Amino acid sequence: MLGNTSGKAFRVTTSGEAFGPALLGIVEGVPAGVPLVESDIQYELDRRRPGQSTIATPRQESDSVRILSGTLDKITTGAPIGLVIENEWATPERIAAYADEKDIIKPGHATYTYFAKYGIHRDWVADGRANGRETAMRVAAGAIAKKLLASVGVEIVGYTKALGGISAPAMPYETIREHADDSQVRCPDAETAERMLKRALAAKKDGESIGGIVEVIAHNVPVGWGEPVYDKLDANLARALMSIGSVKGVEIGSGFAVAAMVGSENNDLPCVEDDHISFRTNHAGGILGGISTGEDIVVRMAVKPTPTIAKEQETVDMVTKQSVTFRCKTATDSAIVPRMVPIAEAMVALTLIDHAMLASTKVAGKDDKQ
Amino acid sequence: MLGNTSGKAFRVTTSGEAFGPALLGIVEGVPAGVPLVESDIQYELDRRRPGQSTIATPRQESDSVRILSGTLDKITTGAPIGLVIENEWATPERIAAYADEKDIIKPGHATYTYFAKYGIHRDWVADGRANGRETAMRVAAGAIAKKLLASVGVEIVGYTKALGGISAPAMPYETIREHADDSQVRCPDAETAERMLKRALAAKKDGESIGGIVEVIAHNVPVGWGEPVYDKLDANLARALMSIGSVKGVEIGSGFAVAAMVGSENNDLPCVEDDHISFRTNHAGGILGGISTGEDIVVRMAVKPTPTIAKEQETVDMVTKQSVTFRCKTATDSAIVPRMVPIAEAMVALTLIDHAMLASTKVAGKDDKQ
Amino acid sequence: MLGNTSGKAFRVTTSGEAFGPALLGIVEGVPAGVPLVESDIQYELDRRRPGQSTIATPRQESDSVRILSGTLDKITTGAPIGLVIENEWATPERIAAYADEKDIIKPGHATYTYFAKYGIHRDWVADGRANGRETAMRVAAGAIAKKLLASVGVEIVGYTKALGGISAPAMPYETIREHADDSQVRCPDAETAERMLKRALAAKKDGESIGGIVEVIAHNVPVGWGEPVYDKLDANLARALMSIGSVKGVEIGSGFAVAAMVGSENNDLPCVEDDHISFRTNHAGGILGGISTGEDIVVRMAVKPTPTIAKEQETVDMVTKQSVTFRCKTATDSAIVPRMVPIAEAMVALTLIDHAMLASTKVAGKDDKQ
Amino acid sequence: MLGNTSGKAFRVTTSGEAFGPALLGIVEGVPAGVPLVESDIQYELDRRRPGQSTIATPRQESDSVRILSGTLDKITTGAPIGLVIENEWATPERIAAYADEKDIIKPGHATYTYFAKYGIHRDWVADGRANGRETAMRVAAGAIAKKLLASVGVEIVGYTKALGGISAPAMPYETIREHADDSQVRCPDAETAERMLKRALAAKKDGESIGGIVEVIAHNVPVGWGEPVYDKLDANLARALMSIGSVKGVEIGSGFAVAAMVGSENNDLPCVEDDHISFRTNHAGGILGGISTGEDIVVRMAVKPTPTIAKEQETVDMVTKQSVTFRCKTATDSAIVPRMVPIAEAMVALTLIDHAMLASTKVAGKDDKQ
Repeated sequence: MLGNTSGKAFRVTTSGEAFGPALLGIVEGVPAGVPLVESDIQYELDRRRPGQSTIATPRQESDSVRILSGTLDKITTGAPIGLVIENEWATPERIAAYADEKDIIKPGHATYTYFAKYGIHRDWVADGRANGRETAMRVAAGAIAKKLLASVGVEIVGYTKALGGISAPAMPYETIREHADDSQVRCPDAETAERMLKRALAAKKDGESIGGIVEVIAHNVPVGWGEPVYDKLDANLARALMSIGSVKGVEIGSGFAVAAMVGSENNDLPCVEDDHISFRTNHAGGILGGISTGEDIVVRMAVKPTPTIAKEQETVDMVTKQSVTFRCKTATDSAIVPRMVPIAEAMVALTLIDHAMLASTKVAGKDDKQ
Repeated sequence: MLGNTSGKAFRVTTSGEAFGPALLGIVEGVPAGVPLVESDIQYELDRRRPGQSTIATPRQESDSVRILSGTLDKITTGAPIGLVIENEWATPERIAAYADEKDIIKPGHATYTYFAKYGIHRDWVADGRANGRETAMRVAAGAIAKKLLASVGVEIVGYTKALGGISAPAMPYETIREHADDSQVRCPDAETAERMLKRALAAKKDGESIGGIVEVIAHNVPVGWGEPVYDKLDANLARALMSIGSVKGVEIGSGFAVAAMVGSENNDLPCVEDDHISFRTNHAGGILGGISTGEDIVVRMAVKPTPTIAKEQETVDMVTKQSVTFRCKTATDSAIVPRMVPIAEAMVALTLIDHAMLASTKVAGKDDKQ
Repeated sequence: MLGNTSGKAFRVTTSGEAFGPALLGIVEGVPAGVPLVESDIQYELDRRRPGQSTIATPRQESDSVRILSGTLDKITTGAPIGLVIENEWATPERIAAYADEKDIIKPGHATYTYFAKYGIHRDWVADGRANGRETAMRVAAGAIAKKLLASVGVEIVGYTKALGGISAPAMPYETIREHADDSQVRCPDAETAERMLKRALAAKKDGESIGGIVEVIAHNVPVGWGEPVYDKLDANLARALMSIGSVKGVEIGSGFAVAAMVGSENNDLPCVEDDHISFRTNHAGGILGGISTGEDIVVRMAVKPTPTIAKEQETVDMVTKQSVTFRCKTATDSAIVPRMVPIAEAMVALTLIDHAMLASTKVAGKDDKQ
Repeated sequence: MLGNTSGKAFRVTTSGEAFGPALLGIVEGVPAGVPLVESDIQYELDRRRPGQSTIATPRQESDSVRILSGTLDKITTGAPIGLVIENEWATPERIAAYADEKDIIKPGHATYTYFAKYGIHRDWVADGRANGRETAMRVAAGAIAKKLLASVGVEIVGYTKALGGISAPAMPYETIREHADDSQVRCPDAETAERMLKRALAAKKDGESIGGIVEVIAHNVPVGWGEPVYDKLDANLARALMSIGSVKGVEIGSGFAVAAMVGSENNDLPCVEDDHISFRTNHAGGILGGISTGEDIVVRMAVKPTPTIAKEQETVDMVTKQSVTFRCKTATDSAIVPRMVPIAEAMVALTLIDHAMLASTKVAGKDDKQ
């Protein structure tokens, strides 16, 4: 049961499969009075959209979003925002092409686990809801979250930190913000970007796919967002990022590197400048005790190479339980990581806006402006 | 608001601070008919208990748990289990000792963020609920979860994978299960354990603390646990582990290493033996598409060195905004990682049992035994 | 925040306003393998649809529902069902007609409370989401719930128990089930139905509206559905029915009449027939201690007369705070109660199916069919 | 599963049975900085406490509450409040006295439904958690909610509106507030109170019990509390009151009487005085479209006569399925209604404070005081 809703105060509920008629999203918690039109959302969708680079899937979709509820005269009303994105790529011919291979376990995919969970009536067309297609609606909802965050000064910026074993050097936030989208690999460092692209094209030529690391920075987050114990801000960020298909690890601040540090090295020492408390270093990644410190929130996620590859693989037919070989004939991403950047940003934005709203609750009486 | 409840179908709600009178826990979702007495829970609490090794905090607590509801004649009734653990260490003298330093930001601690969130009326005694003390109740609830999982054959085993920069070699599951608790560092490999202990004692002598990595394995999990999209099993495991104080990274299966792999290397190929489908490798860590594959679930978390160190540190008084120096005089763990093992196991167990129950819902009619 | 989701295990999330482009619904918890096509849902929508009787609003809508996700080849896949119903009546001209009166408090409507809550950017077109239009999506989701309940033998039947002060006599369940929809007032007793219709037409002629009582019976519910304390089955039924606009009271079994009874009169005595336990009377309305008894669940809700009337009323302009008079020019229901019957049935069905699924959770292991 | 938590932003989770060791409660959402000591809560517990009148159960309990977490120096810290009330009446002898009758269905009780749901391992001692004993913790949590509401000027006052068929006349709010607790029947009208008491004593003499109606008024509630559609304020009030054992009906404002009204009679006309909008009448009971209007919120609940009576009743042994007779030997309330008044107040207070907090969420940035 469940699984289709994200958030507690700012909530996103979605439905829709890779080859169904459309993706639906309902976004609750948007306050009244916010200017909102389709193009605000479309900008982010276009960053995730397939078919836009030499290393991504050739699937062609305009990913045009329509707002079906929650606004009046281009301004939000406080009612839930209803969104729909049609699946233009989902023609009957393309659907039919999946029928032959529906009982074959596609290595690295959710084929077998969905079969085990839902039985023969699961959606077997490109793994249905387990396909990355559903992330389009995450990005759409995240675009609204980003807009609200921007209204209180919070920026969310992501980029490709590593691709196919090639890592970007450390860069200042401003460089990242301004150059992240300069190349199709989404690495702000031009020289690294070039090497990454070569690596991706080589993998493509080999019929292979490559993985990588996405880093997202939330800049200008106020101190005090986050809840204690089980709803720590970092806990919910970890959940949000790990809920994206293909993500196998999440870390914050110095992340796994802390395991080899000593206390005095890892502790960020506070300081005061112009009557304002800040920290000299940011090993914590902007979160202490599950609550934002006011420093940049820095999270990274590890993305596995797309399991869909052009090479032949030995596998199993789930129904006959016979060994078979499988070679993918359908659209695929040889380097999915750059397209994961806007998805990761969306999940960070959705988590932050949810905590921003959770942190604001109070007992309001007659004299409070609500 | 919120933050004190874990789970949806198997739910744990806790309260209690480091130096309050007691910790409380309410555990919902335990079916009727399960034998349950305090000693079932006490066993796990004793594994987490302070004061039991040369490298852990000298705080002395018996951590005696009492069951106040939910059982009759030592058998569960289906009603929520109420648990209480008194804080024996919390004497008025020890509480008073924190008063002098209550406005000083303790580097690496939640002092500043709790002050920002809750104001002057936060619990400033050892950071109250931000202190690791609350994890005792997680372990208590986790003991019940482990018992239920065991009844369907699922085992949860954790150990210290790395400590202070020293890593354990790869080991078979059976070795880990049988030798994890052999040493006070909780590393199943005796030679590594000895080196880890030396490293920990050296850090202690230096007035320092060290970090490390805990790995938890869930063995014999049936295929099909986990929900799609936002409630993927790995997403909820990530949240559960990242919600433990001091954890800065979480990974599953091959984790961050997937970032440098190619698709054909990372894909686990399925095979059939005795009419049973399994996988030749387990890079996926037992989860695909957010749902268990039947292979071992393998998760790791990175633990930062305890911020409480005996060295003097430069910091700030939050109220006066003056620079001050701070040296910790209270109890501390120079190597907290071994005590984190039962906590990590508890969080994995709580997440799995929750998903086990979520996965079981169906529409039951008159002829179904419920 | 929130407000747009119903249920915990079987969840319905909706968006959409009276004069927005469309209503959206996402239905989670539907198991895989259930045959489901639009006409299954359309049948119930047609029962609620406006413009079908002399006493209901003349608003014309086909209320055509489309399934946008969650099925493959006309069978559910376990993924959430996405539904959309376009608002055909919502033309720019009709929307514009509301602009003149947007600041006028419409007596008995949510105009003032929505203004207070959401401010000037609320949806002021026929009160947006406060309009009864949103119930179309409740009925659509309820149709799916009814279908699932029917698969385990549970029937949900509603009818008009009272209208404009005229009450139906007591009738056996079979009579109600077979004749509820015989007349446009939805009272199974033909003679009472005729009197009710006359009363409704008289009210219409007067420019007035009338209220009434809807009774819903859930037949063949197994014993054991419902949770303790705060999630009692009757508590959630009360919430579900009271959440329908215009409902001012909810009762179960003997309801308010119990206030004047003595214990021996109100207690239902159990008996055994053919080795099956049942009860000689059903004052409890099929629920004891919040859990179903196996007897018919009988609930009633009181519906206020539609506040939209043709008579002139004295009211206030919220912005100028001047006294004004208001006479409704738009479509209205002089006797809304018969259209409330399918809505009440839907809410009962949604509550029951949710509890049916909650009651079924268990700890499932390797040998259990899930 | 579930059932033990009330609320979304202000959450109460409880455990504990009638004859277990203790009742536990965890109250989340209480802001930091509120003075809170046991006696604040004890005052309300003493109003509910058994053994204090000639018409209530002779069970003797001090119902002494202890605060185990969430405060420091008698002031709340923002951490969850942990509460415990020991069951002093639950001696081994009294528990043993229930063993003989454990398989007998007690008419009007949850015996049979709990047996069906939980099986032979349910708590059969006075029906365990289905016993009214659990309401003590509702009242304790409600006392905290009342205190928070009072801080923003909101008063919650309840009284016995009807008892054993005798109804109180209409009274102004001030009379109710000042005289509700004057008599042991909790009817503010002295003459009616006297007649009610006679009726209750006559029932007691007969070995009978009587039902009645409790009315609760929330005074000075600001306009704008409540959420749309499924989380309407009245929907959640209905759920809260119907979740109290023995309640069979809930109504708001004119309640069931609206069914016989016409629109112009039921509509409350707004007016302006001193630049403040209010309403000339309050048929709506202070809620329109699920959101508070600023008028008094007026709710009533129908309470059935306590099923525990001294008369012999024909019933069934659930295990042997034989007919048996049953006469209650244990403590009982011949007129439970007056003791229901503080419970109803508590549930109204918990619902209002929850909505007060839900209504306050917003997107808060760096310059907002949180």
